[in-house]
Amino acid sequence: MARLLPCPVARALDFAGDPWSILILRDAHLGFTRFQEFRKSLRIAPTVLTRRLTALHKDGLLEKRLYSERPPREEYVLTDAGRDFVPVLMILGAWAHRNCGSNLARYVDAETSTKIEPVAVDAVTGARLGSRPIRMAAVHDAA
Amino acid sequence: MARLLPCPVARALDFAGDPWSILILRDAHLGFTRFQEFRKSLRIAPTVLTRRLTALHKDGLLEKRLYSERPPREEYVLTDAGRDFVPVLMILGAWAHRNCGSNLARYVDAETSTKIEPVAVDAVTGARLGSRPIRMAAVHDAA
Repeated sequence: MARLLPCPVARALDFAGDPWSILILRDAHLGFTRFQEFRKSLRIAPTVLTRRLTALHKDGLLEKRLYSERPPREEYVLTDAGRDFVPVLMILGAWAHRNCGSNLARYVDAETSTKIEPVAVDAVTGARLGSRPIRMAAVHDAA
Repeated sequence: MARLLPCPVARALDFAGDPWSILILRDAHLGFTRFQEFRKSLRIAPTVLTRRLTALHKDGLLEKRLYSERPPREEYVLTDAGRDFVPVLMILGAWAHRNCGSNLARYVDAETSTKIEPVAVDAVTGARLGSRPIRMAAVHDAA
């Protein structure tokens, strides 16, 4: 199937198919921007972090911003495509909440502190995804 | 943060943090069950496929089912936790649809053939995820 139709899941994994990349995006959503912040949060080897940040920048999920002129120092902030990744993280986390035990951190609204219950639905019908059988189709085959 | 609170994203990646594992789950959702089906679909080395199938089985996302007594042959079918992964795949694919070009395959309802538009929302408020700032909190901190 992946050979007949370009699969969106496979395509997404070209960008974020690595656990470190996904955890860097998670930390970026939580407000981290600087190399040392990511390094400490993730306990990741500097060489690996450099490689992942470079890839996320090249792929357009992070952009560089100068935060110091002298010495020149850059930080990493999410692009629109990077910010758009937050629903993926939350749906992935919600799966863990349902299937991997109850002691995991929760998502809460940063302003109201109310608990968030991430669910995936079809915007057209409102049906929960996973409640009906699906298939993949080329763009022109879909109604 | 990952050290203070068990992060649900990191926990999910313990199970499905590998591109091959995610693509195997995708193929399982599309109805593939047998070793040779996965191998042909993914063009994956048999040793790698064996390792990934074993891990997904051990982690409780796939279960084995005997489909031939003589010779004994097993196939892999999704468990409840594995089936519950479909929203993750669809939200990941929807991200690719929005950010990686328009020529990708679409999800359609297998019975009605209508196009599905996967979105992630908060089940409590109905708000689209990503539209408001969020933070992580320990279970007992959330309202």
